Amino acid sequence: MFDVAIIGTGAAGISSALTLKQLNKDFIWIGDKKLSFKINAAEKISNYPGLIRVSGKEMAETFKKQIEDAKIEITDDQVTGVYNMGDHYSILAAKGQYEAKTVILAVGVESVKPIKGELEYVGRGVSYCATCDGMLYKNKEMTVVATNKEFEEEIEFLASIASNVNLIPLYKNVNINNPKVKIINGMPKEITKEEKIMKLTINNDVISSSVIFMLKAAISPAVLVPGIEVKEGHIAVDRCCKTNMDGLFAAGDTTGRPYQYTKAVGEGNIAAHSAVSYLASLK
Amino acid sequence: MFDVAIIGTGAAGISSALTLKQLNKDFIWIGDKKLSFKINAAEKISNYPGLIRVSGKEMAETFKKQIEDAKIEITDDQVTGVYNMGDHYSILAAKGQYEAKTVILAVGVESVKPIKGELEYVGRGVSYCATCDGMLYKNKEMTVVATNKEFEEEIEFLASIASNVNLIPLYKNVNINNPKVKIINGMPKEITKEEKIMKLTINNDVISSSVIFMLKAAISPAVLVPGIEVKEGHIAVDRCCKTNMDGLFAAGDTTGRPYQYTKAVGEGNIAAHSAVSYLASLK
Repeated sequence: MFDVAIIGTGAAGISSALTLKQLNKDFIWIGDKKLSFKINAAEKISNYPGLIRVSGKEMAETFKKQIEDAKIEITDDQVTGVYNMGDHYSILAAKGQYEAKTVILAVGVESVKPIKGELEYVGRGVSYCATCDGMLYKNKEMTVVATNKEFEEEIEFLASIASNVNLIPLYKNVNINNPKVKIINGMPKEITKEEKIMKLTINNDVISSSVIFMLKAAISPAVLVPGIEVKEGHIAVDRCCKTNMDGLFAAGDTTGRPYQYTKAVGEGNIAAHSAVSYLASLK
Repeated sequence: MFDVAIIGTGAAGISSALTLKQLNKDFIWIGDKKLSFKINAAEKISNYPGLIRVSGKEMAETFKKQIEDAKIEITDDQVTGVYNMGDHYSILAAKGQYEAKTVILAVGVESVKPIKGELEYVGRGVSYCATCDGMLYKNKEMTVVATNKEFEEEIEFLASIASNVNLIPLYKNVNINNPKVKIINGMPKEITKEEKIMKLTINNDVISSSVIFMLKAAISPAVLVPGIEVKEGHIAVDRCCKTNMDGLFAAGDTTGRPYQYTKAVGEGNIAAHSAVSYLASLK
């Protein structure tokens, strides 16, 4: 059991990790080891105090160097659920299960809002995690909606086990050349289910398959953490970054606008301090 | 009339200025051109994302370079009062008066709490600004309480116009060698007034003089901004860094703990965005 689990490797998660490390706390940090794609993707950042007109790539390189310098490890995994167990939290992920007394959610914000039917069928034909659920649909037809290029590795993985894949890329410069993958351009509109077949409405067509993978950088907080209070799509927090659950904190884009690196690191810092105060109050 | 006035050149003020500049807004930034002494004074900062284990001096140098690179000017002045004029704010300072539709208070937090009687006599024998009020007491005996070395230039200025100065330094390594300055060590306890004479109780002694200058890096928000809502010594703000007054925002240490650079830049960013939203709502 860890004292703190940080979920997410964007700017907010990085800030929480640096502060918990400085305070010599026992924590696990779960997320994409390459850091949030949102950092890497930024063209030019000119208002982040301390980094003078950097590209997202340069910022990510600096952060990586700093994490290494501070000897902080990232547990490379994809979290699919955070559950309140009363006196601690249980965290389910693609590769394992983790437990912590407190959790900092630095999970970013959905760049693409859930489509009609999506939330209703999560776990019953809709999945957010290729690694977690891919094998359940081995040799079957799969539909994949992907919001950015970072998911192409996962798409190739799904293609390697599926009978065939219908791919709806919501990004440019798709780089998939796989005879098993059919690329369909358009905006997905609605998900329905008939018997065991998942139906995705796109353009004026309906695509049928056994499963629909929605690969997005961030998923709805309400799906990730059952019982969490959400306001207009964002996790509701107070000025201490506390959510409606004891010991559960949130920081960064997931708590609302402005969607800025500077705001995110600020909240990551606050959430780390709040988690430490909460742990002290337990004693 | 400026759209925005930022008061304070610590981490929060820097962040607000960079963001307002990026958004191409019309603003004035008032404070110490050398940047807040609190940045320069830090020994080692190891949890600020983007700057790997820097000293306060290195951090300040980076910030200065960035401000220069962004072509942002600091108006070197010391603000003594911010007044709500209904549709705008009037800002009184040592060297001038400024007007702005919105104000971001990034004024830091008092490192030394007000002593008994201090707030009661502000403007009636107690002053926070040597440059503003020094000449009013020309050739008279002055008492000066100074919280840090940065004020030695102002102390020398006061000594040059006073008959003599009683100096109570609340810092180490005092570097004042002026026959007109008598250094008294101890913690000041109480200020009283008898007829026109100010009395400062220190140790078991009472020092009499015509005026008491309290030179501190930050003064009480309630003294700086009449009518502002204060909670436990900090300016009360919501998650958008909004105070109890329309168009008045606050960011950084002045809004409360944690007193961290990372938290301060985060709030500076939020306050800048909130000021811009507020200005848009006026149209």
